[in-house]
Order: sequence, then structure tokens, then C-alpha cells
Amino acid sequence: MAQGTLDRHRTKFLLDERDIPTKWYNIQADLKTPLAPVLHPGTGQPIGPQDLAPLFPMELIKQEVTQERWIEIPDEIRDVYRLWRPSPLHRARRLEKALGTSAHIYYKYEGVSPAGSHKPNTAVAQAYYNKKEGVTRLTTETGAGQWGSALAMACSFFELQCKVYMVKVSYQQKPYRRVMMETWGAQVVPSPSPDTEAGKKVLQGDPDSPGSLGIAISEAVEDAATREDTKYSLGSVLNHVLMHQTVIGLETKRQLEKADDEADIVIASAGGGSNFAGLALPFAGDKITGKKKTRLIAVEPTACPSLTKGTYAYDFGDTVGMTPLVKMHTLGHDFVPPPVHAGGLRYHGMAPIVCKLYDEGIIEAVAVPQTATFQAALLFARSEGIIPAPESAHAVRVAIDEAMRATEEGKRRTIVLNLSGHGHFDLAAFEAFLADRLEDFEYPAEKIAEALKGLPRVNG
Amino acid sequence: MAQGTLDRHRTKFLLDERDIPTKWYNIQADLKTPLAPVLHPGTGQPIGPQDLAPLFPMELIKQEVTQERWIEIPDEIRDVYRLWRPSPLHRARRLEKALGTSAHIYYKYEGVSPAGSHKPNTAVAQAYYNKKEGVTRLTTETGAGQWGSALAMACSFFELQCKVYMVKVSYQQKPYRRVMMETWGAQVVPSPSPDTEAGKKVLQGDPDSPGSLGIAISEAVEDAATREDTKYSLGSVLNHVLMHQTVIGLETKRQLEKADDEADIVIASAGGGSNFAGLALPFAGDKITGKKKTRLIAVEPTACPSLTKGTYAYDFGDTVGMTPLVKMHTLGHDFVPPPVHAGGLRYHGMAPIVCKLYDEGIIEAVAVPQTATFQAALLFARSEGIIPAPESAHAVRVAIDEAMRATEEGKRRTIVLNLSGHGHFDLAAFEAFLADRLEDFEYPAEKIAEALKGLPRVNG
Repeated sequence: MAQGTLDRHRTKFLLDERDIPTKWYNIQADLKTPLAPVLHPGTGQPIGPQDLAPLFPMELIKQEVTQERWIEIPDEIRDVYRLWRPSPLHRARRLEKALGTSAHIYYKYEGVSPAGSHKPNTAVAQAYYNKKEGVTRLTTETGAGQWGSALAMACSFFELQCKVYMVKVSYQQKPYRRVMMETWGAQVVPSPSPDTEAGKKVLQGDPDSPGSLGIAISEAVEDAATREDTKYSLGSVLNHVLMHQTVIGLETKRQLEKADDEADIVIASAGGGSNFAGLALPFAGDKITGKKKTRLIAVEPTACPSLTKGTYAYDFGDTVGMTPLVKMHTLGHDFVPPPVHAGGLRYHGMAPIVCKLYDEGIIEAVAVPQTATFQAALLFARSEGIIPAPESAHAVRVAIDEAMRATEEGKRRTIVLNLSGHGHFDLAAFEAFLADRLEDFEYPAEKIAEALKGLPRVNG
Repeated sequence: MAQGTLDRHRTKFLLDERDIPTKWYNIQADLKTPLAPVLHPGTGQPIGPQDLAPLFPMELIKQEVTQERWIEIPDEIRDVYRLWRPSPLHRARRLEKALGTSAHIYYKYEGVSPAGSHKPNTAVAQAYYNKKEGVTRLTTETGAGQWGSALAMACSFFELQCKVYMVKVSYQQKPYRRVMMETWGAQVVPSPSPDTEAGKKVLQGDPDSPGSLGIAISEAVEDAATREDTKYSLGSVLNHVLMHQTVIGLETKRQLEKADDEADIVIASAGGGSNFAGLALPFAGDKITGKKKTRLIAVEPTACPSLTKGTYAYDFGDTVGMTPLVKMHTLGHDFVPPPVHAGGLRYHGMAPIVCKLYDEGIIEAVAVPQTATFQAALLFARSEGIIPAPESAHAVRVAIDEAMRATEEGKRRTIVLNLSGHGHFDLAAFEAFLADRLEDFEYPAEKIAEALKGLPRVNG
């Protein structure tokens, strides 16, 4: 009988190792019209594989453009996934009880990866394909450090060298993230660094530059482009990165079946878009093909609301203007987001796939302010135990809002959110919140106009 | 066929929520002779329940002395356990490969709890029984912060107030551990504090006192003893604490069955003894009753080798000399361990149950130096991903040593270790190790003699 009680209160829906997806889902196969072409920043013409070859291995370039619906996941990658995948799907019963809600709230917990977030899902894949094509060294940039940690770990598994250009202000403020990467064997330098021409140039102008993600990208790309043994690795935005993350949503669908439940609303935070896409794309595919009507909500900070307040236009992926031009919802590539603690959501643009789905009404977006986000994080920590990363807390906030709405409307509704990582390295932000020192930032209308003046002119 | 490949390489052995143990194992039922009585520090006479009543709820006092073999785990506790339990048992295939060993290495991973260690297994139980008996507030002490975090979380689940006296030097050096406890709603003060007579007295003598675990215990005990609504909670050493931890070993035995394997060697680090006991006691029971011959190894730091270099005698549990006298392997209660980073292993004594098993030859003990421990931690992180807590790394070190021995001897051997927690809050220690700034500490023989002079005289 105690057994029965426990079953009624089932909390976790686990899958067996054998249930790790064997294929990634490529939503490009199901889009009604193809993605807008990526343009060369110099010529304004669509770029081809040869343009990307100095930076990426050929298999990832193929994955970037393929129209195949399902891409086989090599056993070598699944072998690493098995260290923490399938990740658990939790029914947030204690949170539901704290809210007194009629809704069912589930969270997919990606913080179980050793790097503490969903980022290794693609880092491992990227390290593998680079290794396979003879690359011996990868470069990347990192801000808050979640992506750098994931790539550092992946490189240690495949015995690749890894150099991480870490935004200098983060390098100084988050020493533990740096040590984590070094523990996995990566070389970490503060950016701007004297190791690249791009870095030297910035340092000449301002020796005390705090750095930025834009500068760090420039350094990592230059490093990779100028060395035969080295390629570059990006943690979000690109199509293949989003595709690698679909293991999250694919597992979640199977887990909901085990829970004998079905998602009405799927929620995840969106910075570059890979975390949202990871959970939402498999559901979006069912929506495009008319199989399901699930609401899919991307959550961004009011401080950096690219989907809800940006323009859908061609823009550079980086701040400096070195990358190809991509059509996306953007706040303008020279927009500098306010210093919210959700560092992973401070990006001026958004993954083209996410933008297209938003433009076509397949997904929704909502922006939430910082303090409301941390209020949600605190309630989550005190009911479910896990202290969420500030990025993930954005999804928690909207899940709570939707649960309360369901309660008011007297509906049952099943809400699924992506808890993309834990907040063990973000406790300074919780300290600020608990001491009532957190600010809210709205993105003012006049700033939109200003930033969008800088958009490149192309015939997109 | 890919399916088959994956099965041959199976990495994790999971149990279902329904398989969370329904009973804790009480090894007192299987000891050949009873534990030596705990003595009153004033009278030298065995203490009774009434002596402990001001500090602990009656149910825990009963559990401390019961001779019942199995104690039912209330559903309310299992409901919380289910947030992270059953914890996974991993086969460390990547570590085995890195070592080129013939041994099978498994690790039970307790770092999946939201507090990041095994400590919540007892914190949740203690919070529950206190709540049930009408207590509204708990006090405790914490050094490194793992225990304080666990109790803070447990108290938030059962809506108890929680006050943590945190050793001042840790309070200053580990602000994130403090914020973690505050996020779960606990009040955290640096000890010595002006909130207690014990704290005031120390501060009068030395306003800049860095504090110690001994002082913090005195403060937490005084606070509980002088308030009607408040009891005290301890994270190790006591019989009931060790018993609560046996869920670790009970799960592990079932998981090994699923792996179709059998433990030859079981290894865990030992500070106060609860982590070692949690994994080892269910195996020790089988050894006492002659069912199995598993080797059981407790690992301690050479800096604080209570089992391998201490004396088996009556001593105080705290530094100040306020607690009852217990018979244990001790380095003397006024021994101040060198500042190794494994803060959880810096205890002068050892749980009486662990000491008795050691004295009777049921378990072994080995001491390892700090740098060798971190070498093992680094190899583990780079092969298995997870960055171990320094305490847990002690078990990793000895598991590697035993695996290499098995390889030399051409034996297969199955080694199971308790990875009691992750090292996310210990990265300063990894930084020191990577920078070659870690010291090794041996416990010199003359210091043993000196410290043991201070042992209390009793007719034990």
C-alpha cells in the first residue's frame, strides 16, 4: 500500500540508457519554406561550405544545411551522453503544492551533466566531429562560463586541446568557472588578450578593456582561422547546434508518455536559442505538421528582448561585424545588454530557426524582468530543492505564471519547462537578490530605434 | 546492433523510485557485542534518554540506541528522497580505460542531491522527526558548508526555521556556501558569534577569532539547550545519522545485482564516519554474519588519521569538552587538524560504530596525502566528467590504487566507491593544486603523544 502511495506521487520519469535518442531531429525538413540564406559579410552573397571550412569540420557544415529529418548520432557521442543522459523529467509536485495550482508542472533537468547545463549536448558532438576529421585543437569564447566549461569537458574526453577566450570581466568575477575549465585541461585567457591581432588592437585602444562576448568571438575565430590544426566551436545560434540539443525534447516526449501525460505548454528560456530549441523543436515539428497544438513559449529577459522587441532583419552574429549575416530577430549588433545576471541570455540576436518559427506563429515569446525571475527561482529552490541557473529561472517564472492562470481559469493544463542548468556558480546573483540589490531593466523604445540604425544593408 | 553495443558498455545502473529503500539498516542488531556506553561528561556514568532530550527529539534518541535491525522509513521522508533518490550507480568505464585496469570500478554518486552531497539523507530525516514532535527551529554548526546546506534545505521542505553557526573562516572564504543556505531560507552567522554565551566568551578573549568546528558546536548546542522551541542537529558520528545514510549501501547492493556483479572491495572516505558508513554498513552486516568477505576500506587524510594513528579510547565529541564521552578512535579532542581542503575530514574522532568495526577487523583503514588525492580527482574529472569533492576524492585515490594492484596481480576484482559529492564549491582547492600550491601533511608521532595526553580519564 505504501508502494501504491508512492506511485500516485511519482516524481521522476527516468529512461534507460538504451533510450538515449539514436538520431537528432532536424526541423529544417519540416519547415514550410527554407531558412533565408546566410550571406557573406563582404559580398552580400549566400555563403557556401568553402567559406566555413576554415572554421568548422565538414560534417558540421553539412549538418548546418542538410534537409534530412533525422541525423544518426554516432555511438562515440552516445557513449559520452550516457555519463548523464537520459536526463530526468521531474514532476514538480512540491512546487505545484506551494502554488496550489490545478496545473501539472514538469521540468526536464539538464543540470545533471558534469558541466552543469545542457551545453555538453552539442559540445560533445562538436568535439567528436572535429577529432574525427583530424583537428587537434579547438577555440571558443565564453561569457558566464557555461559554454566554455562544456567544451573544455568535451575536449578532455576526445583528447583535443582547448583554448577558451573568456570575457575579462567574467574571468575576474567568476574564477571558479575558469578553474573548472582548467580542471578539465583547457587553457583559459582573459579577453581581450595579447594572443591575437584582434585582442592586441583592443588593448592598444584601452588596456583596461573589460572585454565583451563580441571581442572574445573575434579572438577565437582569428585564432582558429590562422592555425591549420585548429577549428572554432560555437555554443548556440547555428542550426547544427540547435539540432544537437533536440535530444532534450525527444527524451521529454517519451518521458511524458511514461507519465501518461501530454504537454499543453512548453517553456524554455532563450538567449542564443539552443536551450529553447532543444526542448521545443521536437514539439514544434508536431505543430507544423498539424499533429499537435502545443503552445511553445520562449522566455527572454526584458533587458535583452530580441524576439519581443527586436526587428526581423539581416544582422551580424557578433558585435564587431566579422561574421556572416543571418536573418534573425535582433536588437542591433552594437546593442550592449544591461548587466543582468542571466549572462547566457545577453545576446543581441537569436538563432535563425527560432526566429523563423516565431515569425510564422509556431512559437510565442515573452519577456520577464530580473527580480520576478529570481522570486520564481527562490520559490523553486525552497520547494523542489534545486537552485536554478538565472537563465533557467526565466522559464520557471513563466511556468508559474501559466500555472496560476490555469488555476484561475479552472483548467488542468500540463506545463513542461526546461531547467537548463543549476545555479551553483551564480550564487552571487542570489546574494544580491536576497539583499534586495537586484535591478530590473526595461529595454526603452528609443534605444531600439538607435540600435537598429546600425543594421547592415543587404537585399535579404 | 547499435543497441547491443550500448548494452555491453552500460554505464549507469538506475533504480526506480519504487526501489528507494523502505527501511534503514541498523547494524547494532548484528554487532557481536554492544557498543560501549556513552558517558556523561560530568558523572562519567552512562547517559540516558533524559540527558539527550533537550537536544534531540525522542524518536531520534530511540533510533540512537535501538537494537532493531530494520527501521521503517516514513513516507514523508521517502517523498523528499524521491527528489533525487535512488542515486545512480555508475560503472567508471572511462576511468578504467584511462588506467588500463582489469578491475571493474563503480561509483555511487551522491552529488545528485540538490545540496550536492550525501548529507541530506539524514538532514531530511532529522528535520522530519523534529517537525513531527512539534519543534519549530533547528540549530547546527557547519565548517565547509555541506552539512549546513543539507540541513537548510531539509528545513525549508518541512517549514522549520534553521540557524547555522558557520566557522568564521569558512564564512569568509566560502560565501557561496553561505548564500546557498540563505537561498533555502536559513539564518547563517559567523561563529564565534555574539548570539551565545559561548560565542561571547571566545570573542572577549579574541575578537578576531577565526572560529573552529568545536566553538560552533558549542554555540549551536547552547542555542538549542536554552530555547524551548529549538533542538540541535548533527550531521555525522551518531548512530542514527549513520543509519539514515544506509540507503546508500542498500541501493548499491541492488544496483550491483542489476549489473550482475559483486563487490570485492568497498571504499569510502571517513571524516566523522557517516559517508563511509552509508555505503559500507550494509556490506559490513553481510561480513559479520559470514555471508560475504568483501573488503571494506575507510579512507582518511594523512593530515587527520584518527583510525590509522589514533587511540581507541573515551573522548569528547567536540573540542571544548561539553559533549558526552564516546569510545572512539581519536587523535585527542584538542588536536587541530592542518588546513587540508577536505574540510569534511578534519575531525579528531570517528563514529563509534565505525571504530568498533575497525577494532574488530571487519573494516580496514588507509590514510592518503593531499596531493595524491587531487591527482586522482583530476584524472577522475578528465575521464568521467564529474569534478569530485576533495572528501570524495580520497575514495577515488584508493580505488585507483586498488585497481592498479588488481591489474598487477592479474585479477578482475570489482571495486565500489562512494562519490559522496561534487566539488563545485571546492574549486579554490583545485586551483591551488593546478598551480602546484598544495601541501601534504603528515601527522607526526610526537604530536600523537602530545594530543593524547589530554584524553579524559574514565573507567571505559
